[in-house]
Amino acid sequence: MGEARLVVVGDELLAGAHPDLNAPELARALARVGIVVKGVELVEDCEEGIAAAIDRARARAELVVCTGGLGPTLDDVTRHGVARAFDVPLAIDQAALNDILSWYERRGAAMPRTNERQALLPRGAVAITNRVGTAPGFRIEKAGRLVVSLPGPPAELRVVLEEEVVPFLVASGRARPPLGEHGFQLFGISESEFARDVGAWMDRDAEPKMGCSAKQGRLLVRLRSTEEGESGMRKLAERRDAFRVRFVEHIYAERDERLEAVLARALLANALEITFAESCTGGLAAAYLTRVAGISAVFRRSFVAYADEVKRDVLGVPQELLDVHGAVSKPVASAMAAGAAAVSGARLAVAITGVAGPAGATDDKPVGEVWFATSLDGEVETFERRFPPGERNWIRALAAHQALFLAWRRLRRAGLAAAACEPGCD
Amino acid sequence: MGEARLVVVGDELLAGAHPDLNAPELARALARVGIVVKGVELVEDCEEGIAAAIDRARARAELVVCTGGLGPTLDDVTRHGVARAFDVPLAIDQAALNDILSWYERRGAAMPRTNERQALLPRGAVAITNRVGTAPGFRIEKAGRLVVSLPGPPAELRVVLEEEVVPFLVASGRARPPLGEHGFQLFGISESEFARDVGAWMDRDAEPKMGCSAKQGRLLVRLRSTEEGESGMRKLAERRDAFRVRFVEHIYAERDERLEAVLARALLANALEITFAESCTGGLAAAYLTRVAGISAVFRRSFVAYADEVKRDVLGVPQELLDVHGAVSKPVASAMAAGAAAVSGARLAVAITGVAGPAGATDDKPVGEVWFATSLDGEVETFERRFPPGERNWIRALAAHQALFLAWRRLRRAGLAAAACEPGCD
Repeated sequence: MGEARLVVVGDELLAGAHPDLNAPELARALARVGIVVKGVELVEDCEEGIAAAIDRARARAELVVCTGGLGPTLDDVTRHGVARAFDVPLAIDQAALNDILSWYERRGAAMPRTNERQALLPRGAVAITNRVGTAPGFRIEKAGRLVVSLPGPPAELRVVLEEEVVPFLVASGRARPPLGEHGFQLFGISESEFARDVGAWMDRDAEPKMGCSAKQGRLLVRLRSTEEGESGMRKLAERRDAFRVRFVEHIYAERDERLEAVLARALLANALEITFAESCTGGLAAAYLTRVAGISAVFRRSFVAYADEVKRDVLGVPQELLDVHGAVSKPVASAMAAGAAAVSGARLAVAITGVAGPAGATDDKPVGEVWFATSLDGEVETFERRFPPGERNWIRALAAHQALFLAWRRLRRAGLAAAACEPGCD
Repeated sequence: MGEARLVVVGDELLAGAHPDLNAPELARALARVGIVVKGVELVEDCEEGIAAAIDRARARAELVVCTGGLGPTLDDVTRHGVARAFDVPLAIDQAALNDILSWYERRGAAMPRTNERQALLPRGAVAITNRVGTAPGFRIEKAGRLVVSLPGPPAELRVVLEEEVVPFLVASGRARPPLGEHGFQLFGISESEFARDVGAWMDRDAEPKMGCSAKQGRLLVRLRSTEEGESGMRKLAERRDAFRVRFVEHIYAERDERLEAVLARALLANALEITFAESCTGGLAAAYLTRVAGISAVFRRSFVAYADEVKRDVLGVPQELLDVHGAVSKPVASAMAAGAAAVSGARLAVAITGVAGPAGATDDKPVGEVWFATSLDGEVETFERRFPPGERNWIRALAAHQALFLAWRRLRRAGLAAAACEPGCD
């Protein structure tokens, strides 16, 4: 494995105006091609300080990546710092200047004079194209040590890294080609249940390696080859197919996609109208779903029924059910979904009623107890979840996501939504 | 101004698992007492590497702050690194051990044997109490150079910094006492309108200094004394009072408080029921308000009326208004609010109808055009905002916040909510 050190430039980062997101981005991107980041230094916008940090870094690693300080203003002095570290003068680089000129040209504007400064490179450096911003990066090499200087805005850094720097590192033999990866997004299974069910697939020496992180009730699972070539690819494909079979109940996406987008796709494909009857989530599930543009084709109205008498008067929940079982109960969830479907005329209705806390808990209904119901073409199914005790809005967000997941799963079981991906589909 | 350098310890930070939030936190806290962070180094969980980074840092600054690597496991070696840098052995510190033991005692648990390790300090170091975690910090000094080592979990770092480290730095003459500060939260005014109205108060050499940042339509304004003593305090109080008068229409809080909490307080104080009639926000305003625990006393139901016919059939908006003016219009917003109040019986109803995009715009109704209406005891008022073109969910979040703000302002104008703070109230 190769090693790298990073130099992150910027007064505002040192002042704590915002956290540095570039070093983590670089570390993850380099790790994917077998290069480990061994140290990061944050320095001021100061020519001498940048030069000294680069010297320290390249004394200890073959690859040094700088970010930031490539803007057009006088306080942007990273190129001066690199030139000082390599003891060479700065000069206008024609390739870099052409890149900047054509960036402005594509936008139908003339390049301001001040931006010419961004084409100044240390002598011997090679410009690195930045297609999404005016600051080209550059790389310079001496005695087997490579220094790469990249723009600071995270969106630009990411593109330049992916399109230019990583391919160069691979082509020049400093990094290995990226290895195979495959992602899954799961819902309705806790991290510990997952760890139990996944067993040895998550062992440290498993091939491919498996990583897992939890976010608002969702589990993001990533399979990563560590073996190169054919054999690595084959093992990744086998594990991916086996994973799909084992977790078919929980996988809702195989790429970075939000639950509401997956649900919306199924609804739109079937021109199937949905509505919600929300108590503890207070409109959050509907608000999540309406994040999706164009949802009006399958979403016309929704119910926020916070009080018991609203559940009764608007959704037609019998007062007797409320009296006997309480609002947080299977029969009330069921009646809410049935009522919302009947009143709205939607084919699919999803009800949510629970104890978000901190008050409202009873002996048999602790904070985190939530009942769900889905009504599809008049058939009601219910579902209970007892979320671990937590902050009110964490429970509400989990419950709203759970509602979206249940709606999607209901459609899938009815043959109205494709599984996230069938074995062999890619 | 004093200077400091930071050493941030942790393999997972170097691997890019998450951004480092401790250096920004430290930089801001130290700046408030006149100490500037001149450099940050991120290093691995490695005794030699930590020692070397501390040596580099204390060669260049009188104050070095380390964070991380104080946990109970074998990979936590910051205390070993500091001991190596100072060339002293580690020994169990009785004060630190007592702190850890009493932390477990308060939780009714016995200290696991492994945690004893956290009481190991370099000889000559003084333990720093950590009331919110098991890892005590410590400080050690030699030849006028002070090294402070603090726990890595951000919540612990913040408390230890505020309660222990800053007071020590002030008491030992390394920092000046914190200067006066006062914050305001504003809504319904853009950053550029604010800059125009605030004029010279935001000049670079103004006393007190004023800073401003925007977040989802809210403006967070901070006044900070730069002069010490009586005169600084007096100027701060004068500016604060003048600010309240000039921006009375927009200030909704003078501390870090969410808009929904401010609105909820006014509703609860008057036992005044609220409801929403939401189109483009799809339930988001209701979801925001129901973040507040105990809101059920003044919130029973709410309407998500996405489709025109729902506005008509449920809220009683005349079809003619929809046909003539379109759903995004002053008369429809007005009728939605009146209808929601009538159907629900709530004294206050807030309607939102707009073009969130990306589709749905017309020549005279661009993306970002949103009409609002509030109905209070049967009297309807309307409000128009044309948010700058932006992403769908950014516009929706702005519109939902705007609705909460309009509801609160309506109550305040009716004498049903206190101004955020009257002149002289503090």
